[in-house]
Amino acid sequence: MSHHSGKVSGLWKIVAWDEPAFQGRKHEFTSECYDITLCGFDNVCSARVESGTWVGFEHPGFQGQQFVLEQGDYPCWEAWSGSNAYHAHRLSSFRPVSCANHRESKMTIFEQENFMGRKGELSDDYPSLKAMGWGSNEVGSLRASSGAWVCFQFPGYRGFQYVVESDCHGGEYKHVRELGSHAQTSQVQSIRRVQH
Amino acid sequence: MSHHSGKVSGLWKIVAWDEPAFQGRKHEFTSECYDITLCGFDNVCSARVESGTWVGFEHPGFQGQQFVLEQGDYPCWEAWSGSNAYHAHRLSSFRPVSCANHRESKMTIFEQENFMGRKGELSDDYPSLKAMGWGSNEVGSLRASSGAWVCFQFPGYRGFQYVVESDCHGGEYKHVRELGSHAQTSQVQSIRRVQH
Repeated sequence: MSHHSGKVSGLWKIVAWDEPAFQGRKHEFTSECYDITLCGFDNVCSARVESGTWVGFEHPGFQGQQFVLEQGDYPCWEAWSGSNAYHAHRLSSFRPVSCANHRESKMTIFEQENFMGRKGELSDDYPSLKAMGWGSNEVGSLRASSGAWVCFQFPGYRGFQYVVESDCHGGEYKHVRELGSHAQTSQVQSIRRVQH
Repeated sequence: MSHHSGKVSGLWKIVAWDEPAFQGRKHEFTSECYDITLCGFDNVCSARVESGTWVGFEHPGFQGQQFVLEQGDYPCWEAWSGSNAYHAHRLSSFRPVSCANHRESKMTIFEQENFMGRKGELSDDYPSLKAMGWGSNEVGSLRASSGAWVCFQFPGYRGFQYVVESDCHGGEYKHVRELGSHAQTSQVQSIRRVQH
């Protein structure tokens, strides 16, 4: 994920606290944080996203479960952890979601890996891929041609989540393993745009 | 909620199982279920929404925590329970989301109860109300003039959720208490349409 380093601007700002409800030690970030323990924090227990969209990770170095973090208040870990098979209690690293163009988000999903099989074109939010006519509970590969997106294991934006960016990997994810370090399921039942 | 009874059609179908992963006893529903124990189930442990959008409740009689259930597979309770301060392990009652018109969803949110104070007009999905310019973490009252909506406690469609329907209460919710039996917080940080 070193291609994200150095991304700094007024476009992104997140404030982290080492206790819940915005208490305890506080640290402001305007660019990526590789490992919160290097800032003297054991863990991020609450956070406020003041600008931009961020993606948080369970482990240092942008590893483990992902959570998209949009503007607003996250007073406790329940506010960012999804409803997963196991609950991640830690937010150890985070980085801005890189996306030059949020206005016209476009993505193609494919039934099989390597952009093979039946495909679906996305340009909106889909709380249920099945309701839009996608026949399967899975996605084999995907190509984000513009915008940034979040894919979810279950309908209604629940379960494991994976952030997909047109500005990363050329927007190409030819296998679910490329979605993240913990991506072990190809179950994807809802997908939405990241909006700024 | 008796105004929902009798709503039966091919538009709604949900299949419930009393064990996880679509195992055990099975029951199909095309209209509301007031209390799953009356069907001989202790609990719904997995569910498949085959058509329509439903709202599930933690307790019988459409009480307690709510979960919107869109088309797709819910193999375990983590798939419908949100990331809440406490995790609801039960799905005890459910009903179709009533909404004649999903095409043009419109809702007005108000800063204070009784439709007072600053207001915001919604016609899209908002993973962060703050990012769209809403200054507060709270909503005091709301009026859904068309469509059905889901309001969430935290950004990114997380935390406690409340289904809001233009076809219920004339779409008027003049206090957060009217959002549901367990609605004790007026924190609303993201809102999205229910899509069919």
